[in-house]
Amino acid sequence: MIIVMEQGATEGQVQHVIELVREMGLREHVIVGTERTVVAVLGDDRNKDKDKLENAGGVEKVMPVLAPYKMASKEAKKERSVVPLGGTLGGSAGGKKLALIAGPCSVEDRVKLLEVAHAVKEAGATGLRGGAFKPRTSPYAFQGMGEKGLEILAEARAQTGLAVVTEVMSIDQVDLVCRYADVLQVGARNMQNFNLLWAVGETRKPVLLKRGISATLEEFMLAAEYIMSRGNSQVILCERGIRTFETHCRNTLPLATVPEVRRISHLPIIVDPSQGTGHAHLVPDMCKAAVACGADGLIIECHSDPEHALTDGAQSITPQVLKNLYASLKKIAAAVDREI
Amino acid sequence: MIIVMEQGATEGQVQHVIELVREMGLREHVIVGTERTVVAVLGDDRNKDKDKLENAGGVEKVMPVLAPYKMASKEAKKERSVVPLGGTLGGSAGGKKLALIAGPCSVEDRVKLLEVAHAVKEAGATGLRGGAFKPRTSPYAFQGMGEKGLEILAEARAQTGLAVVTEVMSIDQVDLVCRYADVLQVGARNMQNFNLLWAVGETRKPVLLKRGISATLEEFMLAAEYIMSRGNSQVILCERGIRTFETHCRNTLPLATVPEVRRISHLPIIVDPSQGTGHAHLVPDMCKAAVACGADGLIIECHSDPEHALTDGAQSITPQVLKNLYASLKKIAAAVDREI
Amino acid sequence: MIIVMEQGATEGQVQHVIELVREMGLREHVIVGTERTVVAVLGDDRNKDKDKLENAGGVEKVMPVLAPYKMASKEAKKERSVVPLGGTLGGSAGGKKLALIAGPCSVEDRVKLLEVAHAVKEAGATGLRGGAFKPRTSPYAFQGMGEKGLEILAEARAQTGLAVVTEVMSIDQVDLVCRYADVLQVGARNMQNFNLLWAVGETRKPVLLKRGISATLEEFMLAAEYIMSRGNSQVILCERGIRTFETHCRNTLPLATVPEVRRISHLPIIVDPSQGTGHAHLVPDMCKAAVACGADGLIIECHSDPEHALTDGAQSITPQVLKNLYASLKKIAAAVDREI
Amino acid sequence: MIIVMEQGATEGQVQHVIELVREMGLREHVIVGTERTVVAVLGDDRNKDKDKLENAGGVEKVMPVLAPYKMASKEAKKERSVVPLGGTLGGSAGGKKLALIAGPCSVEDRVKLLEVAHAVKEAGATGLRGGAFKPRTSPYAFQGMGEKGLEILAEARAQTGLAVVTEVMSIDQVDLVCRYADVLQVGARNMQNFNLLWAVGETRKPVLLKRGISATLEEFMLAAEYIMSRGNSQVILCERGIRTFETHCRNTLPLATVPEVRRISHLPIIVDPSQGTGHAHLVPDMCKAAVACGADGLIIECHSDPEHALTDGAQSITPQVLKNLYASLKKIAAAVDREI
Repeated sequence: MIIVMEQGATEGQVQHVIELVREMGLREHVIVGTERTVVAVLGDDRNKDKDKLENAGGVEKVMPVLAPYKMASKEAKKERSVVPLGGTLGGSAGGKKLALIAGPCSVEDRVKLLEVAHAVKEAGATGLRGGAFKPRTSPYAFQGMGEKGLEILAEARAQTGLAVVTEVMSIDQVDLVCRYADVLQVGARNMQNFNLLWAVGETRKPVLLKRGISATLEEFMLAAEYIMSRGNSQVILCERGIRTFETHCRNTLPLATVPEVRRISHLPIIVDPSQGTGHAHLVPDMCKAAVACGADGLIIECHSDPEHALTDGAQSITPQVLKNLYASLKKIAAAVDREI
Repeated sequence: MIIVMEQGATEGQVQHVIELVREMGLREHVIVGTERTVVAVLGDDRNKDKDKLENAGGVEKVMPVLAPYKMASKEAKKERSVVPLGGTLGGSAGGKKLALIAGPCSVEDRVKLLEVAHAVKEAGATGLRGGAFKPRTSPYAFQGMGEKGLEILAEARAQTGLAVVTEVMSIDQVDLVCRYADVLQVGARNMQNFNLLWAVGETRKPVLLKRGISATLEEFMLAAEYIMSRGNSQVILCERGIRTFETHCRNTLPLATVPEVRRISHLPIIVDPSQGTGHAHLVPDMCKAAVACGADGLIIECHSDPEHALTDGAQSITPQVLKNLYASLKKIAAAVDREI
Repeated sequence: MIIVMEQGATEGQVQHVIELVREMGLREHVIVGTERTVVAVLGDDRNKDKDKLENAGGVEKVMPVLAPYKMASKEAKKERSVVPLGGTLGGSAGGKKLALIAGPCSVEDRVKLLEVAHAVKEAGATGLRGGAFKPRTSPYAFQGMGEKGLEILAEARAQTGLAVVTEVMSIDQVDLVCRYADVLQVGARNMQNFNLLWAVGETRKPVLLKRGISATLEEFMLAAEYIMSRGNSQVILCERGIRTFETHCRNTLPLATVPEVRRISHLPIIVDPSQGTGHAHLVPDMCKAAVACGADGLIIECHSDPEHALTDGAQSITPQVLKNLYASLKKIAAAVDREI
Repeated sequence: MIIVMEQGATEGQVQHVIELVREMGLREHVIVGTERTVVAVLGDDRNKDKDKLENAGGVEKVMPVLAPYKMASKEAKKERSVVPLGGTLGGSAGGKKLALIAGPCSVEDRVKLLEVAHAVKEAGATGLRGGAFKPRTSPYAFQGMGEKGLEILAEARAQTGLAVVTEVMSIDQVDLVCRYADVLQVGARNMQNFNLLWAVGETRKPVLLKRGISATLEEFMLAAEYIMSRGNSQVILCERGIRTFETHCRNTLPLATVPEVRRISHLPIIVDPSQGTGHAHLVPDMCKAAVACGADGLIIECHSDPEHALTDGAQSITPQVLKNLYASLKKIAAAVDREI
């Protein structure tokens, strides 16, 4: 870290800062400039509460130099990680071939789910999404089918070979969901539910971790670090849109996350254009953009009859739209030296 | 809800929308204007997934008329709720007298905690805050003392009479924290951890619910509704700052939340100017502002030696600063016909 | 508009609202629902200050039905507008072939500008960007070469045939810039400098209008409407990133603007990935994404020696990077049935 | 500035950075840490385009140490500036006594304006606001009365002694507005209309500079610096709300701006709770909060008949509400050792 002293800070104040630095087990290097005195701190201060030094007399600001995450960073591992999705179709995220995960927001009905599973497989998907436990803003809304929904997903996998990607909302659901799912999804609202992160970190299932609606990339990487620090390095990051002042879309999809994550981390990064926009009419174009800028995959809400969906109908496309889209995505993937 | 049809929507499209409305158990009222046809929907549609109607042909947009929460709303209960804090000093939130809750970010050490508890009591507080379980952005940071911390908080209550306000992060901690705490705090990161909301909703302890860093007021009220829908109506709302583009402060403290919540809800609303700004030098003035605009209380991070705090030192004021502040707050409270 | 009355609003209050509606020259249609009374307003209220009705007793909220812009909207003109850029290379925005505009942030030197102009032409550009008048956050920063810069740009056009796109910051510069430029750029900071919008609306030059850093799409369309309302319909919209809480990039590039603008407007929409990210290493991937999601063109900061640029070096790519990028863009354009 | 090199940056890369630093007329100080090499730069780099160094090989990031403004900063002038408003009532901003400026959003009618002027004077104001030139989001909306409006404002001053505060939108209006106004207002949308800032900087009228809707404090101070750099140091800063994701209010009023500006600058800072919230029912409480946290004054939209206001009716309070509010403000001001 770099500690910038106020103009006119006294020698005693600088000395006091030096003592605080040494108490933290670090060493200092003082630079007396023409405008400011600066204390550069040497050593690994990633896990220190640096901000408290702001309170010391004469300190203007404290600037971190090191990113606080390690295992998720490019420094820890140069080559990109490839995380297999499971199922029998050989899908994975992080390799040359993109992951394509599609399915309804929530599992609502056995017959409909099986039907859409076959349809998304035919449209090119290797993973099936579908929530059995649904985090809902209102306590009065449909909360998912629970274990019954998981059973239906497993049946769909048996019929199609698609990997099952489904959300786990709470530590007491982890064992149950692990019995049925191939990939555990941690939703955006739970990105900083640290006990849940630890719990999925103790499983050996791949984890699809969604970015929190207002999480910085540093917080996103640290959430991955929580999972990895418990021994599970199969983390797939997912950009699903952030909350901004924009009103024409439910969320703002900031696709620059994709190349930036690829720059700073070895973990695969996929994109959810359904949550990322909130409107079905924006989904196909945002899928194309995501593939063009290097995403390692897509997770798309797909429903045979969106007008009657119990959840998220507004942002679901139909299997037919997905199928048409897939043809374009193949060309774009080829243009950026990938496959789908 | 109001369904606005596109210019040029066909009669068949309007008819289809009417059918969808009726399938939802609601009735329609069609208004053919000069510019648009509008379908006004009659009946209580609070729990319906209205947005899916966006997908129907010819629909331009869907606008909700009713707020989706009920028990937390002013409509459900006209008079303001008063929630007692517990402890032996008679503090409460929502009445004429304001709640003043102070203490360190986390419990770090028995002797220091007892010292600061006596100091904040002397400075005017009736509640003691302090985390035993700490949600930390980094997995490598100090995570709190756990049950040992809860024991120290209980000892501080025994010595001072202060009500103990402490965070519960996870459903498996609820029973344990209930044994020691007077008020269960649900942190901003868990405002939409719905399983946790239900779990604290099943206790009979007051719950201090912090607004999520990017939650709308509607989402905030619905989080309260989750707790209340399980039978616990003792909810204290807490504004603790939102994430914006501003860089000079850790969070932006949007104090208009206070009069707005008092307009739409009967629940007490208090303010956390420590989290709400992130900098000790801004805390006293924001405390004054919060009281002036009608807050039902304050929760303040207070540490005897912020430079050595294990967590959140940058935003902690000392007991001496709190004491001086208290004198000003008394005058401001009087100016707005309140007491502290 | 729809006026939603409070629960329990009196008949007198509804009557008063009706009178206010009629005073505005509009007609009302009252719907008494089970939960609320709603006053639907008939007639074109686009230019009325509707919000003041909020102040009437018993009113809960006022919801607009009609978008306030007309000439920029799809309703006014179904087919997409094609705006020629000028120059002798035949570039335009809005047709099948994309506009590619590149060049330095500011004109700094005659020799360097001519060199980069030839280089971007060779890399595929048909437009040359470069600021002669530069809006700078600091009054102490380089403010551009003024008319001398415009002369250099015109010389570059004479040598290369590239259309000259350059910013006009102030109404007193409009005539001067018109003498040299092919396309007048209105920068993000001036998107709501209404006098400037009117002034460029009175010229017959194409206007490249950048979205304000925190403008809603409605405000963006209304800014275009200002220009069009003075008789100039040659407006090219440009998404150049918005301000959010994100810290890894200077601005957040919300590409869903592209398909949304194409849905609501007939005007061409291009993308500026340089301003839109602030970092050269993100620019190529964001160019690809922009083309994939349907942008009508790109405007890219390109400098032969970014380390020595006087302005915006951090976000400038070199002509060589542009040339390599162009090859990928061609393939992606083809995949979405466009050309570049 | 501090230049942080990537892990594994080569000696050659460090050497190249040193050369770039020296080319900028600055000196370097290299610190080889255990984790990173850091190049601390000595000398005043306030006016340099530092970010371009990001492009040099091996550079991870560039962190500024010095704030880029000077004349507006506390370093330039320790004691607080007091800016007289004009008129004959002796109002000023920045001293012990607060400025209270009230009046309609726009001048709409001579009789009504004179009436409200007398009313706000009686309610305690020493300044009269009212727009003759109105920046409007839509080109079809009422744009103000122009010079006729200015004449009416001057007549109101003659009758009441109130200082006239009115907006200037464009450089060609500066002379005209100066002939009538006591204080020139630069609106939020023009905070970075740099030519306008220079033009008002060349007058000798006090300037009320509103914060842009998404301006950082640094950009706000630099806008003041533009004005001051032309010789006009009579700048009154005004916080008027920022754009965030919040939907219950038109803007979010971030009152921590007040103590922060008082910490970093000598310029007075006042608050506009009308624009700052967008809803009349929030204005009184936000006025109280602003005074409590140290604002140097208030500017409030006040209209005798808000339901019929041509502009901003939703956020205007009546003179009667202002009068009642004034009594509370007096007490709160006294509690923080101020007067109003």
